[in-house]
Amino acid sequence: MNDEFYMKRALQLARKGEGWVSPNPMVGSVIVKNDRIIGEGYHRKFGEAHAEINALNGAKESAEGSTIYVSLEPCSHYGKTPPCVERLVACRPKRVVIGTTDPNPLVAGRGIGILKRNGIEVTVGVLEEVCREINESFLKFIQFRIPFVTLKYAQTLDGRIATSTGHSRWISSPPSRRFAHRLRHAHDAILVGIGTVLSDDPELTVRLVRGKNPLRIVLDSRLRIPLTARILQEQDQAKTLMVTTDHADRKKLSQLNDRGIETLILPVESSGRIDLNRLLRELGSRGIASVLVEGGSGILTALMAQDLADRLIAIIAPKISGRGIEAVGQLNITSMGKAIGLVFRKIYRKGDDLIIDSRFRRPAETSHPAPPDKPIIPLR
Amino acid sequence: MNDEFYMKRALQLARKGEGWVSPNPMVGSVIVKNDRIIGEGYHRKFGEAHAEINALNGAKESAEGSTIYVSLEPCSHYGKTPPCVERLVACRPKRVVIGTTDPNPLVAGRGIGILKRNGIEVTVGVLEEVCREINESFLKFIQFRIPFVTLKYAQTLDGRIATSTGHSRWISSPPSRRFAHRLRHAHDAILVGIGTVLSDDPELTVRLVRGKNPLRIVLDSRLRIPLTARILQEQDQAKTLMVTTDHADRKKLSQLNDRGIETLILPVESSGRIDLNRLLRELGSRGIASVLVEGGSGILTALMAQDLADRLIAIIAPKISGRGIEAVGQLNITSMGKAIGLVFRKIYRKGDDLIIDSRFRRPAETSHPAPPDKPIIPLR
Repeated sequence: MNDEFYMKRALQLARKGEGWVSPNPMVGSVIVKNDRIIGEGYHRKFGEAHAEINALNGAKESAEGSTIYVSLEPCSHYGKTPPCVERLVACRPKRVVIGTTDPNPLVAGRGIGILKRNGIEVTVGVLEEVCREINESFLKFIQFRIPFVTLKYAQTLDGRIATSTGHSRWISSPPSRRFAHRLRHAHDAILVGIGTVLSDDPELTVRLVRGKNPLRIVLDSRLRIPLTARILQEQDQAKTLMVTTDHADRKKLSQLNDRGIETLILPVESSGRIDLNRLLRELGSRGIASVLVEGGSGILTALMAQDLADRLIAIIAPKISGRGIEAVGQLNITSMGKAIGLVFRKIYRKGDDLIIDSRFRRPAETSHPAPPDKPIIPLR
Repeated sequence: MNDEFYMKRALQLARKGEGWVSPNPMVGSVIVKNDRIIGEGYHRKFGEAHAEINALNGAKESAEGSTIYVSLEPCSHYGKTPPCVERLVACRPKRVVIGTTDPNPLVAGRGIGILKRNGIEVTVGVLEEVCREINESFLKFIQFRIPFVTLKYAQTLDGRIATSTGHSRWISSPPSRRFAHRLRHAHDAILVGIGTVLSDDPELTVRLVRGKNPLRIVLDSRLRIPLTARILQEQDQAKTLMVTTDHADRKKLSQLNDRGIETLILPVESSGRIDLNRLLRELGSRGIASVLVEGGSGILTALMAQDLADRLIAIIAPKISGRGIEAVGQLNITSMGKAIGLVFRKIYRKGDDLIIDSRFRRPAETSHPAPPDKPIIPLR
């Protein structure tokens, strides 16, 4: 058996932490001795033990002389838990195989250095691309302290998210809707515009699959939300954050606060819209590493126009609805060469639908907002 | 080796006839003796020998006692060539394996009956679905005498075929454009609206791949086409048919006729549009079994609205252009449940693009116009 085989298993384990470990990365670990797996583990929950520690704790025999696989460089600092490299060194493995280095440039390679100085053979970069991909939210967040932004919507093949009368139920098939609930679980927050709340009255909770409820965020510059909206109920099940502006209805503001609903007042841009850059920085400062944007058209279009979105998951239903409510509105693009570029990363079928999972392709120089001034503090 | 193995080879051969045999079906044949292929053939060109005859003629040894695979039931009538069953019987094979029966209900099973009466073992229905699928144009045409209609366009993920200023070059990548030229070769005719001619001035010939040029049809109710349009040049390379109405500019009409461009005058519907039903019947009567519709939005939308399209090939570019010229316009659909249904048959990548090859899903009762009154005459 080769390194890739065991690293694949470590990645499989890592993914089990999805939705539970954020803003930490998902990490998996496998301990191999005499071509047998003697221990496995993964980072299960934010604040709890790291993958390699769980693998060591669960090992059926001593890890001395073993090869330890871990999908991400073991940490070398005191965070929520003591540094993993110390424990690794103490176990005296023969070799440690690392998927990819720590994405935090201030600590990258430190863990590896400690292992080497202690006479442990180290291999770095096995299935490196996959090891980085599964933590793309974390990678962006740790560097820029703003969340990774995923746009998600279901559209007809001709690009409509509702008919001209606003009718949208159901564009997508039940398997796609379960998939959408799994996506919710995988994210720290869901973001929608007030239009979506007023027309669909969604709950935006995870119901069709097992999982945790992310924070629900509504952009509502004038606080038009009715107090009876489903998204405002049962805050013990899922929290809601109302993002608004100085133009908000004062009475509604105090009514929301009375009901324990958190509100956040942000500046307005010249366009009259809430400043989305500020919103993302504010969410980042709250430790929100990933946001799933579920519509409507206005907010999806605004995030694309401002180059603030990282990933686009379009669920394409095998339907043609003709003129109706478009997924993407006015972008003022006149030449096809200036269209917003995507990379179709993964394409697969879900029920009768097609899922196109893509990443926004950016010119290198505008790829990210400048990193924050303050030093990057390791989280884990 | 089993029947499916050899039938797959027969299908592979059959596909080589694509673009050359219409309105005949594509057919392939393999002759097997002692587990070795001793002869292969396919229908190469309309009017020339059928697949099984080509296989027998090319066989390295006598076909007596062999198994002959043929993807479609051998013909039993005199058409352009003498009946194939006679030749098969004369060769004394032990067994004949047939992909699918003759789609013409008036002759289906006749060839099989003759073979059986002559003591030849017959197996029918090996890879039957695939054997029917490769000839879906022929199957529609032979039954209803109207062409199989394929809509093809390149769109951004958000459903636009051009920007708001009409800019569309290039939405799709070079591999997709070669694919589009292969599609042209595979069809008997290409159909576009006058808007597409006026804005893009296309040639609509097969240039990026080797192949034949199909008939080019332009819908132009008032004959607005300029005589300098590329589509009107070099008629010895590719013919053009201008479809117009009584509202046509008389002078332009005679100018076109003077240049040897064929014109067809059709009635106008109450909507003011050319009667598309009539157009398809007229094309069918000319032996055109398949039409590739390349746009623009008006004609694509009209064919969908009138339930006249069979297949939709959407080339999806990894781009978002925002509001612009939509692939599909007004269909007056208000409820998502009433959207036009598709089945995503095949999905694959071509360069950076995604090709979604689908079929229109129709309620059974409206699946086809009534067959013509006149008896169906076998073509082959």
